[in-house]
Amino acid sequence: MTEASLPVEPWCIREQGLDLENLAQMESLFALSNGHLGLRGNLDEGEPVAQQGTYLSGYFELHPLPYAEGGYGYPESGQTIVNVTNGKLIRLLVDDEPFDMRYGQVLAHERVLDFREGTLRRETEWVAPAGRHVIVRSTRLVSFVHRAVAAIEYEVEPVDGPVRLIVQSQLVTNEEPPEVDSADPRVAAALQDPLVADGQDVEQDGAILLHRTRASELTMAAGMDHDVECAGQYEVEHEAREDWARTTIVTVVRPGETLRLVKYIGYGWSATRSQHALRDQVAAALTSARYAGWDTLLLEQREYLDNFWATADVEVDGDPILQQAVRYGLFQVLSAGARAERRAIGAKGLTGTGYSGHTFWDIEGFLLPVLIMTQPDAAADSLRWRASTLPLAKARAAALGLEGAAFPWRTIRGEETSAYWPASTAAFHLNAVIARAFEYYRLSTGDESLERECGVEVLVETARLWVSLGHHDREGVWHVQGVTGPDEYTAVVDCNVFTNLMAARNLRAADEACDRHPDLATAFGVDEEERAAWRAAADAVHIPYDAELGVHPQCTGFTRYGEWDFHANTQYPLMLHAPYFQLYRKQVVKQADLVLAMHWCGEDFTAKDKAWNLDYYERRNVRDSSLSACTQAVMCAEVGHLELAHAYLHEAALVDLRDLQGNTSQGLHMASLAGTWTALVDGLGGLREGGERLCVAPALPEGIDRLAFRVLWRGMALKVEADHETVTCTLMARDGEEMPMLVYDEEVTVRMGEPVARPVRVPEPLLPEPPQPPGRAPRPAGRMPLALARSAE
Amino acid sequence: MTEASLPVEPWCIREQGLDLENLAQMESLFALSNGHLGLRGNLDEGEPVAQQGTYLSGYFELHPLPYAEGGYGYPESGQTIVNVTNGKLIRLLVDDEPFDMRYGQVLAHERVLDFREGTLRRETEWVAPAGRHVIVRSTRLVSFVHRAVAAIEYEVEPVDGPVRLIVQSQLVTNEEPPEVDSADPRVAAALQDPLVADGQDVEQDGAILLHRTRASELTMAAGMDHDVECAGQYEVEHEAREDWARTTIVTVVRPGETLRLVKYIGYGWSATRSQHALRDQVAAALTSARYAGWDTLLLEQREYLDNFWATADVEVDGDPILQQAVRYGLFQVLSAGARAERRAIGAKGLTGTGYSGHTFWDIEGFLLPVLIMTQPDAAADSLRWRASTLPLAKARAAALGLEGAAFPWRTIRGEETSAYWPASTAAFHLNAVIARAFEYYRLSTGDESLERECGVEVLVETARLWVSLGHHDREGVWHVQGVTGPDEYTAVVDCNVFTNLMAARNLRAADEACDRHPDLATAFGVDEEERAAWRAAADAVHIPYDAELGVHPQCTGFTRYGEWDFHANTQYPLMLHAPYFQLYRKQVVKQADLVLAMHWCGEDFTAKDKAWNLDYYERRNVRDSSLSACTQAVMCAEVGHLELAHAYLHEAALVDLRDLQGNTSQGLHMASLAGTWTALVDGLGGLREGGERLCVAPALPEGIDRLAFRVLWRGMALKVEADHETVTCTLMARDGEEMPMLVYDEEVTVRMGEPVARPVRVPEPLLPEPPQPPGRAPRPAGRMPLALARSAE
Repeated sequence: MTEASLPVEPWCIREQGLDLENLAQMESLFALSNGHLGLRGNLDEGEPVAQQGTYLSGYFELHPLPYAEGGYGYPESGQTIVNVTNGKLIRLLVDDEPFDMRYGQVLAHERVLDFREGTLRRETEWVAPAGRHVIVRSTRLVSFVHRAVAAIEYEVEPVDGPVRLIVQSQLVTNEEPPEVDSADPRVAAALQDPLVADGQDVEQDGAILLHRTRASELTMAAGMDHDVECAGQYEVEHEAREDWARTTIVTVVRPGETLRLVKYIGYGWSATRSQHALRDQVAAALTSARYAGWDTLLLEQREYLDNFWATADVEVDGDPILQQAVRYGLFQVLSAGARAERRAIGAKGLTGTGYSGHTFWDIEGFLLPVLIMTQPDAAADSLRWRASTLPLAKARAAALGLEGAAFPWRTIRGEETSAYWPASTAAFHLNAVIARAFEYYRLSTGDESLERECGVEVLVETARLWVSLGHHDREGVWHVQGVTGPDEYTAVVDCNVFTNLMAARNLRAADEACDRHPDLATAFGVDEEERAAWRAAADAVHIPYDAELGVHPQCTGFTRYGEWDFHANTQYPLMLHAPYFQLYRKQVVKQADLVLAMHWCGEDFTAKDKAWNLDYYERRNVRDSSLSACTQAVMCAEVGHLELAHAYLHEAALVDLRDLQGNTSQGLHMASLAGTWTALVDGLGGLREGGERLCVAPALPEGIDRLAFRVLWRGMALKVEADHETVTCTLMARDGEEMPMLVYDEEVTVRMGEPVARPVRVPEPLLPEPPQPPGRAPRPAGRMPLALARSAE
Repeated sequence: MTEASLPVEPWCIREQGLDLENLAQMESLFALSNGHLGLRGNLDEGEPVAQQGTYLSGYFELHPLPYAEGGYGYPESGQTIVNVTNGKLIRLLVDDEPFDMRYGQVLAHERVLDFREGTLRRETEWVAPAGRHVIVRSTRLVSFVHRAVAAIEYEVEPVDGPVRLIVQSQLVTNEEPPEVDSADPRVAAALQDPLVADGQDVEQDGAILLHRTRASELTMAAGMDHDVECAGQYEVEHEAREDWARTTIVTVVRPGETLRLVKYIGYGWSATRSQHALRDQVAAALTSARYAGWDTLLLEQREYLDNFWATADVEVDGDPILQQAVRYGLFQVLSAGARAERRAIGAKGLTGTGYSGHTFWDIEGFLLPVLIMTQPDAAADSLRWRASTLPLAKARAAALGLEGAAFPWRTIRGEETSAYWPASTAAFHLNAVIARAFEYYRLSTGDESLERECGVEVLVETARLWVSLGHHDREGVWHVQGVTGPDEYTAVVDCNVFTNLMAARNLRAADEACDRHPDLATAFGVDEEERAAWRAAADAVHIPYDAELGVHPQCTGFTRYGEWDFHANTQYPLMLHAPYFQLYRKQVVKQADLVLAMHWCGEDFTAKDKAWNLDYYERRNVRDSSLSACTQAVMCAEVGHLELAHAYLHEAALVDLRDLQGNTSQGLHMASLAGTWTALVDGLGGLREGGERLCVAPALPEGIDRLAFRVLWRGMALKVEADHETVTCTLMARDGEEMPMLVYDEEVTVRMGEPVARPVRVPEPLLPEPPQPPGRAPRPAGRMPLALARSAE
């Protein structure tokens, strides 16, 4: 994918002409979601299509997990997101010829996903094979305000003469499933016609279909309702069968007239509520949406987003593609989280079936920090979901012979569904990352109610996990052995630095939370002995260090592993071309691991550590994960390699917009979309959540003239602007507030109407810019904006 | 199972009465095989049955290996042994009532597997439900002399009046398959009716059935031929269909008369030969067997075994159950290997479908050393099979990004079929164990022709593997990282001591072989640089040592792992009750690992090392593998814990005879059966293959009065006898020979007619007898012989 297919614009992405080659990627990129309901960017008329997609957060089917050689504690059951009843389908016949852009002649076609409007607009000018000339316009939205509702305004206008139009607005269940990447025929079988019909109703202006999944036994309802406007006479008919419902409108429209249809779509699902209740719930959602009407839905959507952008927008002057990407990323992060409301946010949001719709540490580690700073209520709901799965996590820990809670590496409902334990069960750092997200939320929002509501218990149970995972050696040093850190090319190791530092923080956070909430501590059975054990472990944590090289091995012995032969292995990602056996025992890194520790646990490293470690791992990191570039951007910026940071920033930013991983077709990479913000704000902006104070330390590369970002901090809205000379911090919200913060290492207090400005300090790198493995250097950012700036004009 | 079901006798195992509870175990224990053809000890009449079993070495079916999460280099295809056409089935109707021991009345029933005769004799006195009283006798053998032939002598004698007898002698294909332990329905499907009919012929006195497997496309033929003797008139009829053939004999027999049937059964299979050729091959085998006749078959079998026992027998005075067990073990080891002839010997021989019939390192590591000392030609053939798979092993190494050859962890034909790489692909020590077997053969037999024929290439290609697996660190020390040693409760580790020592030996052996065969070295492209690299690696090999504890960690860091909580985990085997994650990171050992290194690489350890290491690992080894007790017996004996050695000896000896692992039903544990010999001969006898000289150092525990064993050494037959006072070495073969050897550390030369006698030296233990994990101490041997001696009288 290139600029040609997606021109660079500041507030939208735009498709011009139908790109059949990149159909699947465009379906993902043009997806709309509010976190509860997600619609892939499929064409209104249903075809051509790469993968139909309508998803409800938390709605999944179970399937067996096969093992040729099983093991104790292996999960037996997988969970996979289901493509539910498709409500966005509107077929059109023009004088009996089906509207299909593969036939006839497309005179013009454009789709625009607008980040401020929250809509997907489409306009297609088409000449049917028999010569009839029409313009089809549609505007689609998934409402941020009405959680269960999507709506489509659909218009057809004849150009050169009267046409007979037949519009078939539909609900369709059990569409052709996507291809499943599994050797087990039962996985594909679970997705073949996953929904069993439970009933259907034809309503006044539409229909409702009721279904349930076979194994997970989740019920759902989907309904549609219509407003039709047409100058001439028209007829409407409604039908419903088990797996489809159809509202058919027949009319003749003359040039200058328009057939206009507004379709309201409502969804509901439940694991417990009756079909009756669900039917009523969907009917109510439709009534409410129709009562508001299309224009109000559109207006509410705009207002919701205006509010969001007012305190979340990031401006990047001089690098238009980054400008587009960071806003696209924020829009999609918001879309994934806004109304997820105590359901898991998938690593691909609700934009595709990649990773079976599972949530991973991507969410707490990479997405929530962005939401916490921009839409904290949504972040809180996501954390509430995690906490709600504590009983399952405690059961999992017990099954593993551990104390406390062990959250699942990948899941939809909360059960562990990973089939390869070295890269899942062993990756216990997830638990510390969840604990960090609770702390990040508390410190950034100042809201301690979430901690009281559920955070303390999460901190306590994860601390218990760590104590049972680690042990003190004969010198009294505390080790965590046999675990896997973030780098999935090195697994089941001793004392992964990232894991150990995060575990120590988790233990201390739990201890401090018990100080703040002694009643809860007592309720959870925490006594002083237990807290002393937490502190003892944290204080004695082992952080391996290779004094000869002056760097931290990412785990014990890592810097003494054999070197990887980058010249003999030139096909990426390496995991598709080399066995785990070889990857694990060599100094080759899939993604930031020790470097991520330097970002999230920065205080545990000196400036020299950071420079030397970055230099060491840059040479060995192949970035086979989309979770790497954003972290590398942050740490390159911190140690003063601003141009390299800029290059990584571009890579993080373009993962989906340029399909850099080659799998955007399966859904968007939410962590990388969030990572664009992180790379800009934490990286070039130098933002750190420093406990009681926010810290910023901007420094820009050559190719960026000005960076301005907005964050929420303890109920206040701060704007930070920096160019190459000056950084200015401005409080945007209510009078009388003041925010103490660090600019570089200077303590300042920003007050309403009293922006603080300081000269920019550019960090002096201690070492020259490091090289990457052959062929794995990021594309320099300098060249791209030049080329793209033209296309953006 | 107890002495009651299998009384203790020196030269046989005996079943008295039909034990329906232990039917499956008895089928395994009473199995007959010559290494090419194996018959489970199923009753002649087919039922009751636990698992029907007729196996041809190397004859298997393919099935897909499923992975919920796959990885590069994972084997896609599994291989599983197939229950082929059953030729041992002889049904009997007594006055129209089917002979079935579950009905009517069994007055007496006995089966005897005789180690000297090589037969399974059966005699059953039975009263049919309607009152007819008959005696049924059968003798079954699988011929060591005629590789493709089994035969059954079958007699029926009425006791109390004339009876009408109908005998149905059968061939039956596609019997009810065993239950498959796999989550994947396709594995079971592959074993449901695995054979497709290719034709059938009714012959003069029997029939032949032709079949093929679906996926592996191996063709087979099974035939039967009959001699009938009967005083009165009888009629015979032969029929054949796709999946069965039947020879029916009808007659009336009076008291004092006997219906006698001799059934000759022949088998053949091929991956390349035509069905025509196979049919003729089986017909020829049957003709040859029938030409010899039953008595000759019986005589040849006896002669074959007399020859074997003459130079292989082990006598154990004072411990009758050990006496029985070591002979049973030798008999079954011989049966597994005698005529395998360039096919893989399965870990369960041809006695059941356990481990899908796969061969493992069990064979080269534990079984071949016994065969080399007792039946070296069979051992040579097994090594030839391994060498014949070099092209597959080289392809596997290349797929793993390695040089040389990587032999499969488990296979039938030669392809890797393990689905869990940390306990298979990573267990590269197998390759050094194969190299050791070639060296063991060469040094013990003095035969260098096998090395020339194929051994050099195996040594060279495995040496190449090791060099590509290891690397020199910055201090010049050579490491092998990321591999798994014998202990499967500790996986993917750095510098497993066993692996590293064995790798170094492999490298040196390859280097020395190139000295002996410079022409072959040149032919395989070995130059001086390569050999220098082999020596450099071997000389610099890293052997981790924990100086504080004075023990060798079995791998880097092992003695610093957390301790296993033996009190919290009391269900064994642990792998069925705890996740790999926990087992791997704790100091808990499944089976001898460092202790095995001390047996096989004894010169690399001091006496103090051995005592301290044994003490350390005894406390942590739970013996969840049948490959452990025999090695522990050997090392306990060496360091002077003779009573503990005796206890382990019993455990190794009784794995199958008392079903100690609970899975004898699936087939016999060949390595443990061989291990009984090893524990006695290497353990109490102190035998070591010391390069140019054999070494013995006998010392007996209290419960054993006298041990005598025979071994072949460079074409000579040596008998070593020891009691508590004297050890005597006697050369048993031709005049003029002499054997230099070590008795304890004294160099002696044994000549024909000049036995060497020396006083026994009992080793003085440096440490007290170590304890085992709670509940895992072996049952003391002292008590058993007393109780059993009575039952043996």
